[in-house]
Amino acid sequence: MAYIPSMDLVPGVLKGDTRAVARLLSRAENGNEEGRPALEEIFKRAGRAHVVGITGVPGSGKSTLVAKLTAAIRASGRKVAIIAVDPSSPYSGGSILGDRIRMGELVGDKGVYVRSMATRGALGGLARGTLEAVDIVDAAGYDMVLIETVGVGQDEVDVARASHTTVVVSAPGLGDDIQAIKAGVLEIADIHVVSKCDKPDADRTISDLKNMLVLSLGLQPHVPAPLDVGARKAARWQVPVVPTSSVNDKGIEELLKEIDRHGRSLKESGEIVERQAAIAERRLVKASEEMLRDKLEERRGELSVLLKELAARRVSPHYAARKLLTESGFGGDK
Amino acid sequence: MAYIPSMDLVPGVLKGDTRAVARLLSRAENGNEEGRPALEEIFKRAGRAHVVGITGVPGSGKSTLVAKLTAAIRASGRKVAIIAVDPSSPYSGGSILGDRIRMGELVGDKGVYVRSMATRGALGGLARGTLEAVDIVDAAGYDMVLIETVGVGQDEVDVARASHTTVVVSAPGLGDDIQAIKAGVLEIADIHVVSKCDKPDADRTISDLKNMLVLSLGLQPHVPAPLDVGARKAARWQVPVVPTSSVNDKGIEELLKEIDRHGRSLKESGEIVERQAAIAERRLVKASEEMLRDKLEERRGELSVLLKELAARRVSPHYAARKLLTESGFGGDK
Repeated sequence: MAYIPSMDLVPGVLKGDTRAVARLLSRAENGNEEGRPALEEIFKRAGRAHVVGITGVPGSGKSTLVAKLTAAIRASGRKVAIIAVDPSSPYSGGSILGDRIRMGELVGDKGVYVRSMATRGALGGLARGTLEAVDIVDAAGYDMVLIETVGVGQDEVDVARASHTTVVVSAPGLGDDIQAIKAGVLEIADIHVVSKCDKPDADRTISDLKNMLVLSLGLQPHVPAPLDVGARKAARWQVPVVPTSSVNDKGIEELLKEIDRHGRSLKESGEIVERQAAIAERRLVKASEEMLRDKLEERRGELSVLLKELAARRVSPHYAARKLLTESGFGGDK
Repeated sequence: MAYIPSMDLVPGVLKGDTRAVARLLSRAENGNEEGRPALEEIFKRAGRAHVVGITGVPGSGKSTLVAKLTAAIRASGRKVAIIAVDPSSPYSGGSILGDRIRMGELVGDKGVYVRSMATRGALGGLARGTLEAVDIVDAAGYDMVLIETVGVGQDEVDVARASHTTVVVSAPGLGDDIQAIKAGVLEIADIHVVSKCDKPDADRTISDLKNMLVLSLGLQPHVPAPLDVGARKAARWQVPVVPTSSVNDKGIEELLKEIDRHGRSLKESGEIVERQAAIAERRLVKASEEMLRDKLEERRGELSVLLKELAARRVSPHYAARKLLTESGFGGDK
């Protein structure tokens, strides 16, 4: 199969051709230079989809929920793309198999597109290419993009930063550690889901979560700060807690209603502008960091003396960083 | 209480004065400019401690294990510092209370120092100041530093990158999602622990893990790559699986033995040099990224037009990043 230049894939992507989409997605994931002009073009053509981040600790039943939610979105007549950020090894291949099994009933539906992005470890937070992947499916005409991540750390904060609406999934009976984590994610959730509500201790989880929300609203007066996810939250938006049960297909419609309501609320309150500004800033930081790392890779030879000095603790990281940044010459036409 | 300039805290830190340590830790966490020369000095004086990263999914019993391991290290006559990276909200305060309860029996022991670092969300991966915190307790004379993190994503990769030895804790009965994650962490573990081995299904977890290790060694011939955590792994080091039970105090001594054995193996194989080089490189990347974000903060006013263009998708993130990097002028005497 001949290699198609990335730029030549753009018209196909814009027409929603899934083969063109798949190819450009791979190039975004690989991060090779050749794909960049195409991804820049796609970036400019995207911006229409409602981007929904769905995050939750392992065992929360998030993946099944995403499959059910996808079916509900389809039933409402909209096209949906799922970008699954998966911390599994890129070698294991397990994630992709998992997707196929989970999304089984949706296979063959042209209104659904699923893509797993393996986290690589080498880059911060989200897998390289995740934000570009959202652009691609957005530009390809999917009305809703679900970014799914397993995370209790930086990944989920990054998902929240890249999304218009952030859904955090909890489940009953996951123990005290999980409870502790909830405190951290309260701030990023636009919507809370308590999944597996067929379980007997679900009511307690729901009331615990509601209490935590009340407590947190009481104890943490909202102080907007730059670069802070919290600052993006609509002052008027009351974070709902939606109980669901994938076994009984309960709560899925309600969840979609809340997601749509949040999307409308962003537009009506004008907060969408702030949120897009925050996403833009995040994109700028991400792109700068990637550029920096590429530069480090590129100059590895020249930098070896500096790195040795640093490893021997004769110079400080700050000194070395300034040297890297000043001497890297980010100018030029590259 | 008068403000003590950070530089004046350095002699106290080097003598192991815990009040000086606590104050400088706070300044590292806050990231204010005034503390930087002191942290640079401390960086140059550190490098003696054995840094052990301990990571595991929520519910793995990692925190209890850390408390037990701490007692074992103390019994071997060494001083130990614990840096707990906690994804809880900085507002909740829960983590610190949690530490106090867990570490209860060790309170009053001057050979143990515990510090929680709240992740802030605003920065990638580890909480700001975590690496500097390791320097501080290292320079203060603690023989072993345990970096404890809850994470299934970037955080734990970052911990692995900052450590000489990485311990990954699993537990029986945490479900399929957890199993999927293990594939991702196989690569970063120098030592695997299966905790809660008093539970009936522990044997299966241990054998699953061992099978995965064999499988992964079989299917993934080791290809060293730059910037890759995997590349740091000693070719000769066979990753052990240590069963523990905090309830019965079982396996803790064995775990400490394996940690010490790994430390010796790094030195004897000469791999410690590579690992220190990888840590140095990571420090350089981190410091550069922080500098970049500070610059973005500083130039927020000037950048507002660019950010608006980006939010409106009239320019690409790559274009904006190049503009930020080229025009920021990282030179000068700052």
